[in-house]
Amino acid sequence: PPTAHASCSTRKKKACHLPKLPASVPSSRTQMASTSPEPAATETGDSVKIRRLQIADRERGFLPLLSQLSSCPDLTESEFAACFADLAALGDDHVILVAEDPAAAPERRILSTGCLFVERKFLRGGGKVGHVEDVVVDAAARGRGLGLRVVRRLVEIAKGAGCYKVILDCTPELRAYYAKCGFVEKGVQMAVYF
Amino acid sequence: PPTAHASCSTRKKKACHLPKLPASVPSSRTQMASTSPEPAATETGDSVKIRRLQIADRERGFLPLLSQLSSCPDLTESEFAACFADLAALGDDHVILVAEDPAAAPERRILSTGCLFVERKFLRGGGKVGHVEDVVVDAAARGRGLGLRVVRRLVEIAKGAGCYKVILDCTPELRAYYAKCGFVEKGVQMAVYF
Repeated sequence: PPTAHASCSTRKKKACHLPKLPASVPSSRTQMASTSPEPAATETGDSVKIRRLQIADRERGFLPLLSQLSSCPDLTESEFAACFADLAALGDDHVILVAEDPAAAPERRILSTGCLFVERKFLRGGGKVGHVEDVVVDAAARGRGLGLRVVRRLVEIAKGAGCYKVILDCTPELRAYYAKCGFVEKGVQMAVYF
Repeated sequence: PPTAHASCSTRKKKACHLPKLPASVPSSRTQMASTSPEPAATETGDSVKIRRLQIADRERGFLPLLSQLSSCPDLTESEFAACFADLAALGDDHVILVAEDPAAAPERRILSTGCLFVERKFLRGGGKVGHVEDVVVDAAARGRGLGLRVVRRLVEIAKGAGCYKVILDCTPELRAYYAKCGFVEKGVQMAVYF
């Protein structure tokens, strides 16, 4: 594992300063920021691209897609922008990927999404753990491997960020699905709802 | 759930500015910062106090305690301070509690610890989820309810922060333990190790 100093010392900088972006990367005001080398959008077999969430994805069906996973009331443009900015301010410690089909109707272009957030610990010399959350594929686009592509990319990003593991919680029915991404069952998820 | 704007708009401020603390609260350089009303250290039946992690807890056995949970190499004073500062900069979005026995030898005073970090989502109108991690009780102090006290306090903090749920992952053997804190089994934890 990385030394604690190397691992920890980057956190404050990322949390407190907008990362310096290459000139070619759009501002974090409109796109999730990244200071790490970022692969170009991947062309899948069916023209769908996997990329980071952009603020304009509110108009491309991002929230209706999330509502297929859990309660997701609509957000006004300014509410969406506020949420986006708060998450983008976390830099590489929070990544939302989307699968976009540029051939679809504008408001139905976002077909899949998934999120990674990076937790810092005192354990493991100041180690990092990736948490995958909020993975969903549009009901009309299932069976095309879009969710797996999103998850695999999130796992790659976590590995590149120096995480020693990535974890997620799912229903028992989804064990085999995530096994395709290299996940193995490790424990039990417990919850308290307020 | 809170509106997205109310929920999200606080994040950037916390991430980018050190919170303004009441005069009576020690600086975040030495103690985990808090902008929310914080209960006084709780006296348990056996004089053990539950409180937030302080930087001086490195000298009170915090890392040896964590090493009972997972690999936890020692950190130098400056490495520990760097980790501490990075986590403290997250304000109320990251809380580490410890149970301290002031009657014990100085280097063995920290008997239990547990961590809460708060995840922000687009789901649920910009909702928040609390994640409980890294709960451990010193082998010589088990059976005194210290871990449950730490976890219950973390759950209270998450509720106070507006989380709609708190989740954790554990081994199947610990189901009954966390049930005492109101947790119910919800799913399966999956992991990839690098």
